[in-house]
Amino acid sequence: MNKLYIIKIGGNVLDDEKALASFLTDFASIQAPKILIHGGGKIATKIGDQLGIKSNYVDGRRITDAATRDVVTMVYGGLINKQITARLQALHCNAMGMTGADGNLLKATKRPVGKIDYGFVGDITAENVNSTLLYFLLKQNVVPVFAPLTHAAGEILNTNADTIASVLAVALSKHFDIRLIFCFEKAGVLKDVNDADSVIRNLNTELYQKLLKEGSFHDGILPKLENAFNAIRSGVKEVLIGEHSHLVANTGYETKGTLITA
Amino acid sequence: MNKLYIIKIGGNVLDDEKALASFLTDFASIQAPKILIHGGGKIATKIGDQLGIKSNYVDGRRITDAATRDVVTMVYGGLINKQITARLQALHCNAMGMTGADGNLLKATKRPVGKIDYGFVGDITAENVNSTLLYFLLKQNVVPVFAPLTHAAGEILNTNADTIASVLAVALSKHFDIRLIFCFEKAGVLKDVNDADSVIRNLNTELYQKLLKEGSFHDGILPKLENAFNAIRSGVKEVLIGEHSHLVANTGYETKGTLITA
Repeated sequence: MNKLYIIKIGGNVLDDEKALASFLTDFASIQAPKILIHGGGKIATKIGDQLGIKSNYVDGRRITDAATRDVVTMVYGGLINKQITARLQALHCNAMGMTGADGNLLKATKRPVGKIDYGFVGDITAENVNSTLLYFLLKQNVVPVFAPLTHAAGEILNTNADTIASVLAVALSKHFDIRLIFCFEKAGVLKDVNDADSVIRNLNTELYQKLLKEGSFHDGILPKLENAFNAIRSGVKEVLIGEHSHLVANTGYETKGTLITA
Repeated sequence: MNKLYIIKIGGNVLDDEKALASFLTDFASIQAPKILIHGGGKIATKIGDQLGIKSNYVDGRRITDAATRDVVTMVYGGLINKQITARLQALHCNAMGMTGADGNLLKATKRPVGKIDYGFVGDITAENVNSTLLYFLLKQNVVPVFAPLTHAAGEILNTNADTIASVLAVALSKHFDIRLIFCFEKAGVLKDVNDADSVIRNLNTELYQKLLKEGSFHDGILPKLENAFNAIRSGVKEVLIGEHSHLVANTGYETKGTLITA
């Protein structure tokens, strides 16, 4: 099977012009089918503030009310997504910006109201990815660039960018050998959270279970690792957790981050 | 050749929720390949005002400075485009929202600075349409929905929606028998501007030249007619100018608007 890179970048890269320019150049240079998923960044909060829209939190969890949803639709789906797309085009990368509504690529379920009403938030599964259309776009050498938005019942919904990346990887694992790359601010999963050089270079299920029992992981990395092993169990060949500035190395054989396999 | 409908709606429909809902239902019901191009609407001006961005005019012409360009990128490319896409999806129409940057569909030239510097405005020609990708999308039963934005040299540019519709029609006329439909507030081209019932039902080059010499057209309609006959001369089979609420009739044989042919 052909290799496919699915790469997620967070808001911290988007907020740092120098880091972003460097990341986009690296991303454009990857000579293989690839998909980019971007998060939000501080610009959405800034524009929301200027428009007088308050962030709502219940029990420390952010709520997406209708006004906030419209701001993220504008900022994630319009401003950030189209700026990235135009910049990648100038780097000879045939980027195509999209949300989950476009081409019904990511049909979501609006999160049911339980103890908390999260508002306009969409939950997705690999079964609800239009992988036929995505596969066809990749075959045309198009590079999909996803904003963290999905849809249900005629509405745009806010969806976590990490989740979108994982779900896309699982849905496309029938067609490609996938390396799913999560870019974040650290070089990888650290054995010692206070030692930036203690990156665990290779992690498989066996070692993960062992380190988990030993309590080696700090709380912040656990959801990322759970997410990664879920993807591996669902057919994704490799998950890499690493720093955004190490992208080129992390798409090759001599990776700098944490390479996770079955 | 197969028929393709290329349909442009203006901001007045977008600003009127009842008219928009009805238009989208009609558009979704068309059982043929189709493309939608939407204009802006007052919401961009409103959001620009709220963000403290002033509209700039020189000699009565609107200038797109960088801040205004970012607002239209957000509002046209994000909010309006994604809302329309999500609503069409709920109407079982496989809409895919896009700008000219996406998939390099509309590569523009930034308008050269002459007597006026229009700012971030893109001029386009049929030669710079990625018609291969558009053709493939249409073959996949995808319905492209264009925001009036193009790109050049890594930047998003503002481009007139009527121009985008015409240029797409010309570029795709090799592959399809095209009916290019401009929806506006009147039923069609009027013989007597004060009589709403005086729609010229059929207009060809001969009759157009005759009426032009007689001075029958008022100034407002002349640019639309010139645009229409330019498209006809460049290979577009039919151009229809009509009211947005007459869309279903205007996609059939018994048209209510002005049907323009060679």
